[in-house]
Order: sequence, then C-alpha cells, then structure tokens
Amino acid sequence: MNKAAIYRQLAPEARKQNGLSVLNQVIGVLILLASLTAILETEPTLRASAPWLFPTLETIFVVVFIIEYLLRLYSIGEDPRYRGLSGRFRYIFSFWALVDLMAILPYFLGFMVHDNAFLVRLLRLLRMLRLARLGRFSQAWSGLADALHSRSYELWLSAGVAGLLLLFSSCCLYVVEAAAQPEAFGSVPRALWWSIATLTTVGYGDVTPITALGKFFAGLTAVAGIGIIAMPTGILAAAFSDAFQKKRNHPDG
Amino acid sequence: MNKAAIYRQLAPEARKQNGLSVLNQVIGVLILLASLTAILETEPTLRASAPWLFPTLETIFVVVFIIEYLLRLYSIGEDPRYRGLSGRFRYIFSFWALVDLMAILPYFLGFMVHDNAFLVRLLRLLRMLRLARLGRFSQAWSGLADALHSRSYELWLSAGVAGLLLLFSSCCLYVVEAAAQPEAFGSVPRALWWSIATLTTVGYGDVTPITALGKFFAGLTAVAGIGIIAMPTGILAAAFSDAFQKKRNHPDG
Amino acid sequence: MNKAAIYRQLAPEARKQNGLSVLNQVIGVLILLASLTAILETEPTLRASAPWLFPTLETIFVVVFIIEYLLRLYSIGEDPRYRGLSGRFRYIFSFWALVDLMAILPYFLGFMVHDNAFLVRLLRLLRMLRLARLGRFSQAWSGLADALHSRSYELWLSAGVAGLLLLFSSCCLYVVEAAAQPEAFGSVPRALWWSIATLTTVGYGDVTPITALGKFFAGLTAVAGIGIIAMPTGILAAAFSDAFQKKRNHPDG
Amino acid sequence: MNKAAIYRQLAPEARKQNGLSVLNQVIGVLILLASLTAILETEPTLRASAPWLFPTLETIFVVVFIIEYLLRLYSIGEDPRYRGLSGRFRYIFSFWALVDLMAILPYFLGFMVHDNAFLVRLLRLLRMLRLARLGRFSQAWSGLADALHSRSYELWLSAGVAGLLLLFSSCCLYVVEAAAQPEAFGSVPRALWWSIATLTTVGYGDVTPITALGKFFAGLTAVAGIGIIAMPTGILAAAFSDAFQKKRNHPDG
Repeated sequence: MNKAAIYRQLAPEARKQNGLSVLNQVIGVLILLASLTAILETEPTLRASAPWLFPTLETIFVVVFIIEYLLRLYSIGEDPRYRGLSGRFRYIFSFWALVDLMAILPYFLGFMVHDNAFLVRLLRLLRMLRLARLGRFSQAWSGLADALHSRSYELWLSAGVAGLLLLFSSCCLYVVEAAAQPEAFGSVPRALWWSIATLTTVGYGDVTPITALGKFFAGLTAVAGIGIIAMPTGILAAAFSDAFQKKRNHPDG
Repeated sequence: MNKAAIYRQLAPEARKQNGLSVLNQVIGVLILLASLTAILETEPTLRASAPWLFPTLETIFVVVFIIEYLLRLYSIGEDPRYRGLSGRFRYIFSFWALVDLMAILPYFLGFMVHDNAFLVRLLRLLRMLRLARLGRFSQAWSGLADALHSRSYELWLSAGVAGLLLLFSSCCLYVVEAAAQPEAFGSVPRALWWSIATLTTVGYGDVTPITALGKFFAGLTAVAGIGIIAMPTGILAAAFSDAFQKKRNHPDG
Repeated sequence: MNKAAIYRQLAPEARKQNGLSVLNQVIGVLILLASLTAILETEPTLRASAPWLFPTLETIFVVVFIIEYLLRLYSIGEDPRYRGLSGRFRYIFSFWALVDLMAILPYFLGFMVHDNAFLVRLLRLLRMLRLARLGRFSQAWSGLADALHSRSYELWLSAGVAGLLLLFSSCCLYVVEAAAQPEAFGSVPRALWWSIATLTTVGYGDVTPITALGKFFAGLTAVAGIGIIAMPTGILAAAFSDAFQKKRNHPDG
Repeated sequence: MNKAAIYRQLAPEARKQNGLSVLNQVIGVLILLASLTAILETEPTLRASAPWLFPTLETIFVVVFIIEYLLRLYSIGEDPRYRGLSGRFRYIFSFWALVDLMAILPYFLGFMVHDNAFLVRLLRLLRMLRLARLGRFSQAWSGLADALHSRSYELWLSAGVAGLLLLFSSCCLYVVEAAAQPEAFGSVPRALWWSIATLTTVGYGDVTPITALGKFFAGLTAVAGIGIIAMPTGILAAAFSDAFQKKRNHPDG
C-alpha cells in the first residue's frame, strides 16, 4: 500500500464519494470505545472488579492511535499544504494533529502522576477529550451553528439581560437575607449560587430564603427566570424559522 | 351474524363511514378500564381494602379480550391479505395480533409467578401496556409526527449537542468535586446523575456541589441548560410554523 | 336618578363610549379590594393583630355588593331580554347574576359554619372567587383564547403524548424502584407524584430514585420532560406567529 | 485641552465616528472594575484577607469619578441645551447626572453609617448600581426592547393569566393542605411561596404537599406551569420572527 493510498484512506477531504472511508470508520468507532472506556474507568467499583481490564484496553487504544498518528504523519506529504520536511513540521503543530497528540500523551503522563488524586482525575478527563478527535470527521454542525450565528447579536444581548438580572437578584437577596442566613447569602458572590439556580429554574433547594422579604424577591426572581428562558428560546425559534424558510425558497442555496 | 358482518364491526379500515364501529368503541372503553384497573391494582392499600375486586375485574376483562381475539381470528379471513389457513398463521404473528395476545397472556403468567416480587410488578406493567392496543384504532398522531420528522436532522443534532454538554459537565464536576463528595461525584457515571438533573433544569437538589469551583461549573451547566431547552423548542416552533403555513397555503394538500 | 340612567351606569354593553362607566370602575376596585382582604384574612398573624378589622371590612363590602345586586335587579328591566317579572326571574338565574350572588352568600354562610376548619377555609376561598366578577367587565382575553383555540387539536395531542409519557415513566420507576422505596414508588399512583414533578422539570427532590436502574429511567424521563415543554411551546409560538401575520396582512380583519 | 475638546471626549452623542471615545472607554472599564470591586467586597473572607485593599480601591475609583463628574459639569456648556449657569443647574438634575452622583455619594455616606449592618449592605448595593452608569453609553437594547414592546399587550395578558393561576393554585392548596401543614400552607400568602416555585418550575422542594388531594392539585399546578412558560415564549418567538422578517424585507428600515 503506497503513500497516496494511505492518504486517501486517512484524509476525509481527499475522498470523492460522500461518507467516511472504511479506515476512518474503524478509527471513529475506536475513538468512541476509548472515550467510553475512559468514562467507565473513573468508577472505582468497576476498576476494582477488573483491575487488569482498563490498563490493558488503554494500552491497546494508545498503540493503535500511535500507529494512526505515524501513518498520518507519513502520508501527509500527499497534501500540497504540508509537502516536504518543513511541511511535516507545520503539520505537527496544526490543530487536528495536536488534538491527535492529546489523545496519546495522557497515557505516558499517567506513568509519572500517581500520588496526586486531582492530577490523576485531570488525566482521565484528558482521555475523555479524545472524543474531540471525532470533530475531524464532521461537517454536520454547520447548519445549526449558522442559525445560532445569524442571531448572535440578539443572543448576546439576552445573555447580557440575564447577567444583569442575575446580579440584581443576588444583590437584593444579599441585602435582605444576609442577616438571617450569613452562610448562604452573606455576600453577593455567595448569593449568586442561589440566584443562578433560581433564574435558570433549576431550583436545587439547598439554599432558599426564609424571611418574608427574601421570599418576595425570590418570587420576582423566579418569574424573571421565565423571561430568561423565553428570550433565547424565542430568538432561536425565529432564527430556525428564518433558516427553514430560506431553504424552502432557495432549495439549492 | 355472519363472518363478513363481524369483520366489518372489528376492522376499523373496513368501515366506509368515519369514526369507530359500536363494537370497537366498546372495546376501546374496556381497554381503558382494564388499564386503569391495572394501575390502581398496584396500590397496596386499595388491594387490601377490596381483595376480591381486582382479580374478579381482571378475569372479566381477560374473558372479553379472549372472545374478541378469537372473533378477530375467525373473521380475518375476509381480509384478502390473510385468506386461508396460512393467512391465519401469518395474522397471528402480525404486529397488532401480537399486541392483542400481550393483553391476554399476563393473566395466565400470573398464576405461575407468585413469589418473585419483581416479576409480579413486571406482569402488572404488562397489563398496563394493554393501552397500546388503542394504537390500532388511531391515526391521529401522524400530523404531530410529521412535524417532528421533518426536522429530525436538527433535533438529532441538538440531542448530540446536549449529550456532549452532559458528558462535559459531568467530567468537570468529577474533576473538581470528587475529592469533596466521592459518593456523588466520585466517577463520571455518578456525576451524570447530577448533570442530567441540572441540564434539564429539573434540579432535584439531592446532590449539589459544595466547593466554590464545583459551584462555578454547576452555574455554567445550569445556564447551558437553558440552551438545551431553547434549541429543540426553537426547532419545533419553526417546524410547526412551517407545517401550519403550508396547510394555509394549500388547504387540500 | 331613574331606572334607565342606573342601567346605563351598570351595564357595560349599554355604553356607547369605550371603557367602563364611573360606577363600574368603583365596583371593579371594590371587587379587587374585597378579594385582597379575603386573601390577607387567611393569614392567622394578620387576623390576630387586628381581630375587628376583617369582619368590619367584610360587612362593608357585602352591604355594597347587596345594594349593587338589588340595583342591577331593579334596572335590568331596561334590557329587552329581561323585561317584566318573568324576565327578572330569568336574570336571577343568568350566569353573571349567579356569580354576583356567589359574592354575597359566603358572608351569611359564615355565621352558620364556625367549628369545621375545612368548611371555614372553603368559605374564605369562595370570597376570593369574587375576583371572577371582574370577568363581567372584560373582553380582553378573546385574542389570546383564539390563538389557543386555533391549535387546540395539536395542543390536545401533545397533552396526550405527555399523559402517556407520564404513565410510562411512572410504570418504569414502579417496576425498578418499588423494592428500594416502597413508600414513594410502591404503586403506580404513588410513582406518578415523582413522575409529574420530573416531567414538568419542577423537580422538588422530596422523592428521588436511589437505584442505578431507577436513576437511568429517571434521566430518560427528565430528558423527555424537555420535549413535554418544547412541544406546546412550539405549537403556541407557531399559533401566535400565524395570528400576528394575519393581523399584519389584514389589519382591519 | 480646551472645553470643546473635553466635551467631545466625554459626550458620546457629540462624536462623528461610531463607537466610544478613548476617554469613555477608560471610564467604562473603570465602572466595570468599581462594580466588580463592590461585589467582591461583600465577601467577608476576601475583606479579611486584605483589609486595606477594598477601601484603597474605593478611594481611587471615587476620586476618578469626582474628577470625571466635574469635567462633565465644566464642559457641558458646549451642549446647547445646558448653556450658561442655569443650564448647569438643569444638568445637575438631569437623569444621567444624578446617576453619576449616585456613584459618588455612597462613599461619603459610608463614613456616617458604621453600626447598622443592614444600611452598610444597602450602601454596598448602591455602589454596585454604578453599573447603571454604563447605560449612558449604550443604545444596543432598543432592538430587543422594540420586539418586547410590540407584543406588550399579549405579554401583559399572559402575565395576568399567570397571576390568576398563581392565586388559584395557592387557594386550592390552602384549602386542602392547611390542616396538614399549617406552617407552610396555613394561609393563602404562605401558600403563594410554594405556588410560585411550582408554577415557574423552579421547584425548590423546601415545601411540598403531603396529602393525596394536595399532591393532586400540585400536579395540576405543575402542568399549568408548562403553559406559564410556553405562553410568553411563544409570544416572544412570534415577535422576534416578525421583527427579523421585517428587517429582511426592508433592510434599510
């Protein structure tokens, strides 16, 4: 199998037909499996029930990803943008090549980090970020992103309104509830936690106002929360309606 | 009453007028009553206050459903698709005939399963699934389903975005909260429970982050939850708007 | 002041100008005050701090309402529909006259019911229902009601989908959680309480699944809850969009 | 630097180019920093870790704002509306000049109020309201406000429906739950707290009905809550759709 054939198998933009090549399909499935393994590995009860399983799987995935990485590096010379040795260097520091490297490095870093629980968790998170490699194969999000982008000005404005409401309701609750519940409302940053849970209508209930005035402002905040949900929803609905209508009027556009 | 008359009474597609035949209306009400009985039967206090009531009702419903099943099997020969003995066999394994059988079988299985509480509950669930038999009589959902189907691509994409956000917020909370609350955030699958309650803005509050960094990421997740609600709502709003407009422009289409 | 002048002051449909007559405006404000008094009267601490206030206010309101009722009865003869003695009788049993009577009767029933706390509360509720008398003066809701009505078929269908989802998720949780939490999930009707709180994304958190399988189905239910919110919202958005567009195209229609 | 040059730097409406002058950009950043400082200052742990930091920063911000205030007062004579000494007086009592003064005054009031914790918190809130000064520089909200305003009638109507539902569900819960939970449902105003948390789908869960009838009405309230969210969202979606469509048809309008 020569360099050009490998390149055609690996680079999605080099294919004439639609869809992914067989090799890329296999790689995509492997990425999904590797991410799923990384997710399940975080569960201590699963790690304990099969201590040898996760390191073994991890080694297999990393070996395959290293081979894939080297094949990509070898065949990338076919791409006119990355011809020659200096092209190879430029490829190594291109966005998707760095993402590919990020899928391999955590394995080797794992041998160095053992005793710090936080770093161990961070490394496991990096393994899950392999999922980002799938982005290489996908152009599907563009339609959704376009609709969002066409109304980004209105969406940012409504985010600004939401931010001001968040701040304002935190301040109100801080003023009226701080004396009764200093732990939860003793400062504006503390009151923000309650405020964001209420304005987004999540409403955990771990912190709730207990004074009559606090409940009054909390009620106003909850009602304002409906607006916080209604505004971006309305904007998005209008944006999608617009996009669908354009498509119907100019189906080839 | 001959075979053809029974067939016309039982098969909704054989009727010339709109609406259901008298017999099918009676059967529909019986299905509703049988499902309601199955639901109420699960309540131990009701079972205790009238121990003889539920088995008696159950026997009556099953006897009626068996008679109906046999009548359908007898008269189905009128349908050109199921003519002859081999047609009868094919009918028995057709979708709606199996659904009808599912409404009868749990009764007889109930005599065998007594000591396993989980199986008893599962059998009661099967009785409630009789409700699915009503699907035989209904073509009403098609309009709603069409609007959903016409935008299935965008809906799947937004489900994908929601899935990635779910995973990402679980990972973040796992990294920053696992040390403080190993029981609730000690692994990504555990953090998923909190994450799904927050992103859908349900917000049970049985599990909430307690560290400052955890609360920060939780706030971001709650805000992202608004997008998770706004996107499908916006897509559906646009889809319905489209469908209603088409209808107005081409009322007979 | 003769009968015709009283009639013109009391009947909103008899006025030529837009808006309410001075007398009806005064009555409207009195109705609002009487309802507010009825609401505040339910609070025991307020009742205790001014024991004489609420009965006195109540007596004043009822005296005014009785005078108004008698004036309406006296002047209704001007309305061609209610002319003569038999017309008066028909008026007494007309919808709005009964609503007016409902605003007066609880006062006299209050003297009879003293020792039954539940009936006392029910009587207070009846006093609050005086608010319904305002409906006599208002034609404002028709626009909103039209938009809702034009899509009532789709809204009922989505209510049906919501009902089936509610039932289905209750059944699932009953099957998998009944053993672990018989108090909260021991029957389908009990599980409904959790199910409705989750599907509407209210999420009180007083009852939550604790088994892994229960959490899995609860997650699915929470996600389905987004659809339950998105569907009627989308339908209403499309209905309002339709109504606004019609108005713009035919401003006089 | 003469008076006219200062005026051109300070007054956004005097600039020919789009965007803010360099001086106004600096002031805008200072306002943001001063508000952020005021927010963080409320946190006792931050105050304790650097007791000298917040008063120092506060003094710096106030000195800059005083200089800015005096420069504005000095240069406002360039504006034809505020020419001469009487113009200066009129400017001092204009809206934005009062807002500017509000950003300075809390500093001096702070020296007088020391022992009353509530007043100290209120003063800190006033410092945060400096954020309102940014409104002087912004005309961005007009588009969003127009869409809201064009449908204000429908939005007010749906707010009225929400208010009636709120009252009605409070009354229902008061009647059926007051006996079981007098602390939480012992009066209609008390029941309002539960009712608003449920209708907005926040659902704290600090107060939930425990009787079967109470749960039944609570379920109805939760379902009605979906409508409370769906109505304004639908109205806004239609309003935005309208506004976007107008823009597309008349891009210069």
